[in-house]
Amino acid sequence: MKAVYFDGELRVCERPKPLPGEGEVLVKVSAAGICNTDLEIIGGYIPDFKGILGHEFFGYIEESDDTFLRGKRVTAEINIPCLTCDMCMNGGKKHCKERKALGIRNRDGAMAEYITVPIGNIHLIPESVSDKQAVFIEPLAAALEVTRFIPTDKEKSVLIIGDGKLALLITMAVSAITENVTVVGKYPDKLAFLNYLPLTATLLKSFRKEFFDVVIEASGSPSGFELALSCVKPGGICVLKSTYKDNVSFNPSNIVRNEFKIVGSRCGDFKRAIDFILLQNPPLESLISGEFAIKDAIEAFRYASEARVLKVVLSMKDFR
Amino acid sequence: MKAVYFDGELRVCERPKPLPGEGEVLVKVSAAGICNTDLEIIGGYIPDFKGILGHEFFGYIEESDDTFLRGKRVTAEINIPCLTCDMCMNGGKKHCKERKALGIRNRDGAMAEYITVPIGNIHLIPESVSDKQAVFIEPLAAALEVTRFIPTDKEKSVLIIGDGKLALLITMAVSAITENVTVVGKYPDKLAFLNYLPLTATLLKSFRKEFFDVVIEASGSPSGFELALSCVKPGGICVLKSTYKDNVSFNPSNIVRNEFKIVGSRCGDFKRAIDFILLQNPPLESLISGEFAIKDAIEAFRYASEARVLKVVLSMKDFR
Repeated sequence: MKAVYFDGELRVCERPKPLPGEGEVLVKVSAAGICNTDLEIIGGYIPDFKGILGHEFFGYIEESDDTFLRGKRVTAEINIPCLTCDMCMNGGKKHCKERKALGIRNRDGAMAEYITVPIGNIHLIPESVSDKQAVFIEPLAAALEVTRFIPTDKEKSVLIIGDGKLALLITMAVSAITENVTVVGKYPDKLAFLNYLPLTATLLKSFRKEFFDVVIEASGSPSGFELALSCVKPGGICVLKSTYKDNVSFNPSNIVRNEFKIVGSRCGDFKRAIDFILLQNPPLESLISGEFAIKDAIEAFRYASEARVLKVVLSMKDFR
Repeated sequence: MKAVYFDGELRVCERPKPLPGEGEVLVKVSAAGICNTDLEIIGGYIPDFKGILGHEFFGYIEESDDTFLRGKRVTAEINIPCLTCDMCMNGGKKHCKERKALGIRNRDGAMAEYITVPIGNIHLIPESVSDKQAVFIEPLAAALEVTRFIPTDKEKSVLIIGDGKLALLITMAVSAITENVTVVGKYPDKLAFLNYLPLTATLLKSFRKEFFDVVIEASGSPSGFELALSCVKPGGICVLKSTYKDNVSFNPSNIVRNEFKIVGSRCGDFKRAIDFILLQNPPLESLISGEFAIKDAIEAFRYASEARVLKVVLSMKDFR
């Protein structure tokens, strides 16, 4: 089968069609999104991954011991924890040290014609979720995680820093529960995707610093990190959603004096993401900047790395 | 009256005896502790303070409209908030931007024969609290703040980094509620003060890194900050209690990937500190490395800045 393979170099090549192990299903992939994590892997920022890339995807189950599942449209959670370590036994499965992660850690990903995944990782995709929405289930789940930190008090203010794919998804998620939202970004055309929401979208160059109860840092840049910490109200929360290529130099005294909480937030709950799509019908498809056939994956990756580009999707022939 | 005055230079000099304003009391000071914050002020790390230093103290009320209070042994909270701003009106008094703080911000402190404080800041000191324990009420209140972050589950592990005054008080506070405590410090003679507690005290040079559910950083050094973050279990909490002279260079990605919580924690509740002394009778007096008369304050400050020295107290003649 064709696959997007990385072993220090990115290439499209033939790989053996995988065989599902015990308790696994074989999924014929329909589409896979290119995520910043994929760009970081090929940039060498995530050490040691070698294999097929891709962890945002959906497809159709082709082989399963469970006859009900055959032919169903599904997506799958990324992490495959060991289920036996202390962390797994105490509710910390996503932090299992021995975990594998599709296309990220010791396990082939979804940028291929086929992928195998444990049956427990599978989520059925309801019919009213479109194909184009379905590729966003994984990043939307991650985005929705931040809502745990949003106060229910409508008076409280939220600042979101960033206008990349994740920042826009986070903004959609946060705006569903509160209206006192400000987003600061660099690109007017990216911020324009948020026009349908009742919020304040501001360009960084015209942003006048003020204090917010919650600040969500989703730019992944050291300057975004610094801006975030300087905008948290004393006693407030700063949620970090992005990883950073470079070190940040700062004095943590501010965290102590102003009693900030800083919380890191990563993956989220797929079921919540699916429910969110069903209930809110967010215009996720508008965030797709380009679709490429898998054979053109190298060009797709190059395009995805451009600053103005949002989601790039590698699609197979049955992506509608 | 004699006072320890700082205006860019530290000196002992004569200052006018203060007159209590409306709603204030006049306290004849018995003793005042030298805190790291005082050392930071005279080192120039806290900008703009000019006045009498000192915020850890106790004394006897000499003038008050409330006859009940006259002659009572008291201490006083540091912060004098404006009580009218948004922050004050919404439960954030200790973060009031207009607040004054005894010996720290726009208000004379307690290293003098007399101090005036608002009556609302006063706490009576019960008889069974000794004079030597009384000088620790303020820093103990700050130390006790961390217990908000200690899980009640006895299985959970706590690491405390540091063996300075604050770190030792924090360890006493934490050990009162859980036994799974490790302290890592640099000085055997400082760690020896914790011998009476059921905990693991380890020298930094022989500390073998492992993961803890809660890590409390109380060293105030960039290397302590780095050590703290590298010892937090995924999903765990890092509490920052110390301020830092120097910047820290680090990559926040770790916070995101491992979903850490980092919380800054500063001042605490005086009543809890007084209750703690009454209930636990901690050997606070053992943490006093030296007592000096106010006339010898310059020498006291020099001594207090030595790495091996713990609490230094400036005492008046009625300190027992």
